[in-house]
Amino acid sequence: MALKRLTVVDGMDEAIGPLAVRTRRLQGGLQDGLLLVEIAAGGTTAQVLPDRGLGIWRMNSGGTDIGWSSPVRGPVHPRFVPITDPSGLGWLEGFDELVARCGLVSNGAPEFDPQGRLLHPLHGRIANLPAHGVEVTLDEAAGRVTLHGAVDETRFLFQSLRMTTSISLQADRPRVSWVDTVENLSDRPTTMQMLYHVNIGPPFLGAGSELVAAVEELAPRDHGAAADVPTWNRYDESRPGRPEQVHFMALRSDEAGRASAMLVAPGGGDAVCLSWRSDTLPCFSLWKNQGGLADGYVTGLEPGTNYPNPRSFEAAQGRVVSLPPRAGVSFALELEHLTGPAVASVRERIMATAADSRSHDRPRPDWSAG
Amino acid sequence: MALKRLTVVDGMDEAIGPLAVRTRRLQGGLQDGLLLVEIAAGGTTAQVLPDRGLGIWRMNSGGTDIGWSSPVRGPVHPRFVPITDPSGLGWLEGFDELVARCGLVSNGAPEFDPQGRLLHPLHGRIANLPAHGVEVTLDEAAGRVTLHGAVDETRFLFQSLRMTTSISLQADRPRVSWVDTVENLSDRPTTMQMLYHVNIGPPFLGAGSELVAAVEELAPRDHGAAADVPTWNRYDESRPGRPEQVHFMALRSDEAGRASAMLVAPGGGDAVCLSWRSDTLPCFSLWKNQGGLADGYVTGLEPGTNYPNPRSFEAAQGRVVSLPPRAGVSFALELEHLTGPAVASVRERIMATAADSRSHDRPRPDWSAG
Amino acid sequence: MALKRLTVVDGMDEAIGPLAVRTRRLQGGLQDGLLLVEIAAGGTTAQVLPDRGLGIWRMNSGGTDIGWSSPVRGPVHPRFVPITDPSGLGWLEGFDELVARCGLVSNGAPEFDPQGRLLHPLHGRIANLPAHGVEVTLDEAAGRVTLHGAVDETRFLFQSLRMTTSISLQADRPRVSWVDTVENLSDRPTTMQMLYHVNIGPPFLGAGSELVAAVEELAPRDHGAAADVPTWNRYDESRPGRPEQVHFMALRSDEAGRASAMLVAPGGGDAVCLSWRSDTLPCFSLWKNQGGLADGYVTGLEPGTNYPNPRSFEAAQGRVVSLPPRAGVSFALELEHLTGPAVASVRERIMATAADSRSHDRPRPDWSAG
Repeated sequence: MALKRLTVVDGMDEAIGPLAVRTRRLQGGLQDGLLLVEIAAGGTTAQVLPDRGLGIWRMNSGGTDIGWSSPVRGPVHPRFVPITDPSGLGWLEGFDELVARCGLVSNGAPEFDPQGRLLHPLHGRIANLPAHGVEVTLDEAAGRVTLHGAVDETRFLFQSLRMTTSISLQADRPRVSWVDTVENLSDRPTTMQMLYHVNIGPPFLGAGSELVAAVEELAPRDHGAAADVPTWNRYDESRPGRPEQVHFMALRSDEAGRASAMLVAPGGGDAVCLSWRSDTLPCFSLWKNQGGLADGYVTGLEPGTNYPNPRSFEAAQGRVVSLPPRAGVSFALELEHLTGPAVASVRERIMATAADSRSHDRPRPDWSAG
Repeated sequence: MALKRLTVVDGMDEAIGPLAVRTRRLQGGLQDGLLLVEIAAGGTTAQVLPDRGLGIWRMNSGGTDIGWSSPVRGPVHPRFVPITDPSGLGWLEGFDELVARCGLVSNGAPEFDPQGRLLHPLHGRIANLPAHGVEVTLDEAAGRVTLHGAVDETRFLFQSLRMTTSISLQADRPRVSWVDTVENLSDRPTTMQMLYHVNIGPPFLGAGSELVAAVEELAPRDHGAAADVPTWNRYDESRPGRPEQVHFMALRSDEAGRASAMLVAPGGGDAVCLSWRSDTLPCFSLWKNQGGLADGYVTGLEPGTNYPNPRSFEAAQGRVVSLPPRAGVSFALELEHLTGPAVASVRERIMATAADSRSHDRPRPDWSAG
Repeated sequence: MALKRLTVVDGMDEAIGPLAVRTRRLQGGLQDGLLLVEIAAGGTTAQVLPDRGLGIWRMNSGGTDIGWSSPVRGPVHPRFVPITDPSGLGWLEGFDELVARCGLVSNGAPEFDPQGRLLHPLHGRIANLPAHGVEVTLDEAAGRVTLHGAVDETRFLFQSLRMTTSISLQADRPRVSWVDTVENLSDRPTTMQMLYHVNIGPPFLGAGSELVAAVEELAPRDHGAAADVPTWNRYDESRPGRPEQVHFMALRSDEAGRASAMLVAPGGGDAVCLSWRSDTLPCFSLWKNQGGLADGYVTGLEPGTNYPNPRSFEAAQGRVVSLPPRAGVSFALELEHLTGPAVASVRERIMATAADSRSHDRPRPDWSAG
């Protein structure tokens, strides 16, 4: 049984049995120059973007695309994303992925100093920084293909953070799993944040879609979302102009220390389930963006070290990760496509961890910045 | 008779009869990596920059260059243009073209929020965004070469605008003509602005050059330009350190609904005439930048949806274009080189539309922001 | 004896006798796409980065690397350096070179307008602007290899500056020397600044390293550096978390009009000496950054037209260079590796110019901005 470890370059097309890696350089418009890396195992593929911080652009499971249709029509090369626009909102010009990481110094709403000068842009830098050391391992015996790489987020005298990533597919399961380790390379202590913005649209999202999660506590992000609290886990059809709604939650974990959130497609025959190690990702945000199809009809499942408020608010609540010199923290997640009876059995497994649940009808002052 | 539609790539060199397209990738310094596309028909060529929003860098008519000599010595790759510099003036580091579009969200002077944070950079983003779908049609029967392409200006949750462009040359006429259609791809209504910054220097600009236009009403942009109102249509020699002067105007249109502005070279034997559909471009700004030759001795003929004030001022005056979901607006312009008797006959044609004209000796408060 | 003048392109590998030039395009991560140009003469090499304003990334003398280990792990392509970040500190994300130029419009601490809007980013633009006209001359008779090039820093209506550079190695001497001429290409007068940030780490920097210079006057930059005044010319071991210390000085020049600063390695057997024409570079700043090894344990020898305060402070003190239209100013420097008896003889030569010296125990109000 073969095992190959390959440096990722343009124009790859390698396969061993059910495992494969293909790369191509995108051309024209906002995607010009981006390298797209597709890994495949059995009937599952994942498309990874080294130039966008190893974000996972799309997944395909047995012919079903998992992702969403963003109005930005990406993927977008970071050189066209004005990440340090004084508004702090330039990130929105590149937002298009199935899995967009938000970090490493900060995530959440942009933060400004008292003079209005940008301190932390929306959702941070990591999704617009390039990876190095990108390699793929095709392990035929294990039936697994893994993409490895690292992304540095460094400013002299400020921070020196490195994220080392492995993204894997198994030939026998329609799932992508990934482990990110963020290390403080500095000789001084530092703090960091991470949030996984996992974004799913049709066919999983539609009128009648349901979010299944073992909620321990839930609060709307803001007063605009309060009216949706009783229907927090239900979705409507796309409606042009409808504003986004966000709920913040603490979820219960299973015995293995994993929390889950499953989006069940209309009709219930199909679902995607995101699960993650909850010790390092204790916060969960649910983003419901049910506007027009042309404007990005999508829901975001967002496990994080924190809720996506401005960084200083989260720091005051103790929701930043402290990293001593040379220390690291790992995040482990998986996103699986479920069909048929698996939908019911995963629902059962998730709800087995459920117990008393508490819902707030207004924002929790320690979860939502004013 | 042949008709070819070709995808534009690096290293093209195609010709059919009097029609041709050539491309090359520029190297070194601030132009490194830019693709230059030259289309030619008979003795006329136009050089188009897909990476700079399909701007028209230069035109050549029978050996005469039409354009200007900017101190930025471009063309400049957008990656070197700090468009979101907090000053809002980064656009000036790439300003070099014969035809630079200003839009799509906004054009005109930069605008800031009350804390001084940039909202809209000078002249907007479109001239520094890349085109996609760039193709050239060589139509031998029609004697016409046309470059097609589209540029997207999109920010998630904000705007989703697409400009689709055709730029044409006819073998039998020393003229470039172009049609831009801007469409709102969003499911929500939006607003937009467009201004064409058409910039011409020597040999058309010089002491004794004249601007011919059928003015209905004219006002200086600011008090600094007021003294130039009596001589608004005359040009002086280059003089180092002379500040720019700008006049805002409403022009009269001909029966076909077109307005025109003709710059007659010193001596009167040569001219360039810009004309455009005035229903969608009702405002005309004339920029006279008669400083030193090394600093860009140039005049700008600027038809627009508005005058180039900060966006909120123009919006308050009703000078933004409203676009319902999926709606579009088209702009059609042409720039022609005139020689010999054609100069006099076009002058006659333009002045045939003239009637009473009103000049203000100070800025109109509804045309110029305070 | 051969003399070759070659345009610098990717993939060069040319040699004549002891002279050579090699180039390669770096790949992956933050260095992706950068061209590295290595010139060599005898046992000395210098690596130059045309894309980073012709900065000198590293030097090697007989197997000894001269440079430092920056946490940014560059060289970093300018497209990843957010130079116009509203904080004004984005420059720090690309700071990695042995010789980083700071200018041309400004250098020093960032400056903001009263609303907090960035006017001048830290250390200016030049180190993140691309060179054009890059050529190498291999002159066998002279035993010299020289890299030539130019970098433009231009904003329409603002400034039009060009730096023309020659960087040379001699086969018979372990030294890199360079001459930069900055010219005002505008028809209007202008002002500019330049500072050479020459950064050296181990093995030259370590506990017991000494800085040898003929000080005429010295003042700490700030109160934090005041305690270090008595030990200004001595270095400690790396200590995580130790803040930087900066001293500002006027040095004495030799009869040829050159000032020098020599960093003697621990033990005294090895040194690097920077010397420069002091008429155009009258100010000297010494940066001692003796934090953790992972955070960049380094000292900066920084001859400049000024001290690195915000530009308006320096202008008020008369420390900007005025350039009439078409006028230029030249800067000439050399950095030499010294071993054995040369260390003592250079020390003697430097100290021969010494005379009365004055040290301040607090910042000079006309040298340090409040």
